[in-house]
Amino acid sequence: MAGTDKGRSPVTGGPRVVLVDPQLGENIGMAARAMLNCGLTRLCLVRPRDGWPNPAAEAAAAGASEVLDGAAVYDATPDALAGCRRVYATTARPRDMVKPVLTPRAAAQDMRAAEGAGAATALLFGPERSGLTNDDLVLADRVIAVPLNPAFASLNLAQAVLIVGYEWFQAAHAGPSESLALGGGLPAERGELLNFLERLERALDGGNFFHPPEKRASMVRNLRNIFLRGDLTDTEVRTLHGVVSALLKARPDAVD
Amino acid sequence: MAGTDKGRSPVTGGPRVVLVDPQLGENIGMAARAMLNCGLTRLCLVRPRDGWPNPAAEAAAAGASEVLDGAAVYDATPDALAGCRRVYATTARPRDMVKPVLTPRAAAQDMRAAEGAGAATALLFGPERSGLTNDDLVLADRVIAVPLNPAFASLNLAQAVLIVGYEWFQAAHAGPSESLALGGGLPAERGELLNFLERLERALDGGNFFHPPEKRASMVRNLRNIFLRGDLTDTEVRTLHGVVSALLKARPDAVD
Repeated sequence: MAGTDKGRSPVTGGPRVVLVDPQLGENIGMAARAMLNCGLTRLCLVRPRDGWPNPAAEAAAAGASEVLDGAAVYDATPDALAGCRRVYATTARPRDMVKPVLTPRAAAQDMRAAEGAGAATALLFGPERSGLTNDDLVLADRVIAVPLNPAFASLNLAQAVLIVGYEWFQAAHAGPSESLALGGGLPAERGELLNFLERLERALDGGNFFHPPEKRASMVRNLRNIFLRGDLTDTEVRTLHGVVSALLKARPDAVD
Repeated sequence: MAGTDKGRSPVTGGPRVVLVDPQLGENIGMAARAMLNCGLTRLCLVRPRDGWPNPAAEAAAAGASEVLDGAAVYDATPDALAGCRRVYATTARPRDMVKPVLTPRAAAQDMRAAEGAGAATALLFGPERSGLTNDDLVLADRVIAVPLNPAFASLNLAQAVLIVGYEWFQAAHAGPSESLALGGGLPAERGELLNFLERLERALDGGNFFHPPEKRASMVRNLRNIFLRGDLTDTEVRTLHGVVSALLKARPDAVD
């Protein structure tokens, strides 16, 4: 894994994920799945307790085999970091060490900037129960602490990998934060929409809906606003025409 | 669980988390742990496959017992949504339904804004393998889709809960970037909205709207989707009741 930053390409494939002394194969597998969800593929294992490869990891990876198959195994944490130029330790806030502490979001920006400059990055995760030792923690440039419910802040290993990977992915692939699924249709043409609204209003006049008369204008406005706010499609406008026709045909005592 | 938004306090304790047809107790437990990590405590289970309580859930919750102990069990999804005024479905981008689609981050801002206005919110999660049915999906105002590696985007249930909960928690530290002017009203209460829709559907049955009969289910879904998408307020639901009444009273030859 060393020397992966030689190419100085703007995106290096993201940080390598270094799991130190991982215990359960299942957690390694779930971490691999979370990595691939976020487009991360380079997994490093330092002294995996149950050896490697591990069938329990395979079973839990839910198809993320390319991550497991490419995993590199090391005897010592510094070996796993060879070639890296920026290292982040994920842990609770260190108590007796001076380190910059970043949220996952700020760390993602920081990683992207480092990667953009051609510097390979790494994320260090400690074993499930005890977390990183001080000797490993001190190898990191920065600490990532996830802001969570202070009364219940302990994340499982795969979930910690997911949060940091998720932020890394968002930092580059932030498309529009909101969009509209149109179900294959097009937003309704304005004239068709008005045509429907006017038909509805005529029908409502027939049912004495708009009273008193001096309130008609504002009632029409409120009614139109209901339908205009919903981003109706062509098909839905036709559906609403059918609704009006059917209601006009229904017997008055059908439901009232 | 109904009526939890009566107090109109700025933070209602966050969205309720509704798991529909969850299969493995272990996944329910891990979801509960992820919820409590993010400060969410209100868990609703719709038809948990293996019954409730479930020892496997307890074992996987890693101490998040207060979430499991407080879980409410329902036979039907609409029951789990009673009292809610804004509902988010977490799913892949819908293929044949018109819905606003938000990233988890945008959804978190949207939830905070709704909660700030005193409106209770809910997050819908489908079963592990198949995801939400269209009938449940249509009950949601908005869809949350997590931007992930498109070649490997499937999250496990607890991880999906974690990402959305994480963003909800983070949003407490930043103001909303977008909000909805509610004109002094509140988003419609879910039961009132369903009550209107069911009345409309009965009236449409009277006008032979739903034909052929085998298409009724999908036609009902499309029709509901039109009204659910528009962020209707209480007042507007009352207006729509008046619209139906007036159309039923109008003469069939009024406009057609």
